[in-house]
Amino acid sequence: MTLASTKLLTLPDWVPPFVKEWGPVGPDPEDKMRLAVALSAENVARQTGGPFAAVVYEASTGRVVSVGVNVVVPQRSSLAHGEVVALLLAQEALETHDLGRRDLPVLEMATTSQPCIQCYGAVIWSGVRRVLVGARASDVEAHVGFDEGPIPEDWVGQWARRGIEAVVDVLRGPACEVLRNYKSNGGHVYNSESNLRGAGLVE
Amino acid sequence: MTLASTKLLTLPDWVPPFVKEWGPVGPDPEDKMRLAVALSAENVARQTGGPFAAVVYEASTGRVVSVGVNVVVPQRSSLAHGEVVALLLAQEALETHDLGRRDLPVLEMATTSQPCIQCYGAVIWSGVRRVLVGARASDVEAHVGFDEGPIPEDWVGQWARRGIEAVVDVLRGPACEVLRNYKSNGGHVYNSESNLRGAGLVE
Repeated sequence: MTLASTKLLTLPDWVPPFVKEWGPVGPDPEDKMRLAVALSAENVARQTGGPFAAVVYEASTGRVVSVGVNVVVPQRSSLAHGEVVALLLAQEALETHDLGRRDLPVLEMATTSQPCIQCYGAVIWSGVRRVLVGARASDVEAHVGFDEGPIPEDWVGQWARRGIEAVVDVLRGPACEVLRNYKSNGGHVYNSESNLRGAGLVE
Repeated sequence: MTLASTKLLTLPDWVPPFVKEWGPVGPDPEDKMRLAVALSAENVARQTGGPFAAVVYEASTGRVVSVGVNVVVPQRSSLAHGEVVALLLAQEALETHDLGRRDLPVLEMATTSQPCIQCYGAVIWSGVRRVLVGARASDVEAHVGFDEGPIPEDWVGQWARRGIEAVVDVLRGPACEVLRNYKSNGGHVYNSESNLRGAGLVE
């Protein structure tokens, strides 16, 4: 048997030109979220993944450092949520495992939905200093049926304790609309089958 | 500006021959953990990453599906914990985002330390059905000083609810010894600087 020894994660082809065409992003939270929501909607429209996207910005200028969209199914990776892809690519672009390094500008991430427990943790180790959140976890569970996992009740405080600020409900309405459209157009929930069986959600 | 659009994660070169030379693994939890602990020790000895490793197995036979070691610093990715690497490579090997798919054999992961909150979540979405855990989260924090994050108090129960069984304290002693050796040989903690500043652990 030969072990798999590499994994390549790739943005869908349409993403870089889409971001280029979008042009400069202003410094306000809503400006930063607008691009993320547009990416999540486009990801659904082009059927390149789930209804989630994230963008890492230089906080003070709005310069785009990296973008991510959910590519779980096409790239055969349950880990490839929008936030994970954005954080991997930000660290690739800046050539460091620590986006909070003292010599870097302050970096923040806009994510169209409140991170699931995996991505909640990934944010902590990444070094981003602020996270703008669109839809709430309860919205994700209500509109798409995706299990967000046992996120700490005081998730905002647990981030704050580690130097990470959360800004919630940023363009929550538009972010929720993308979730609703995904579900009503037959987009499927791709929690693991065994996971759903364990939870009694499928036979 | 050109966006980074791909991220390649790779096992250190020594890993595949190491696993091949190790030979067949028995079906017992201790047999399965022994390889993981050996990989974590070797990762430290060769200075190719942190003191953590994980192996995904076919539960009933002990066949190795994938292995992962922590490559956070060399691969410039805060996400590249041992468990994440093992899960990415298991899904790559089996060409699916769902290791819990009904037509696959039951898969489990042996991990040398209790997963941090990111990896705790990644396990849930991955589809593995059982996780063998070596050192406890409290051991990791005591011996290495690595923050494991706000893991749910009832982490075993929250997994169980989703069809995932935890088996704890499997070769806990040998797993802890690797952590202690790492720290005493000057291995550093690579939590984000901003994270540690936020927590008041550095200036």
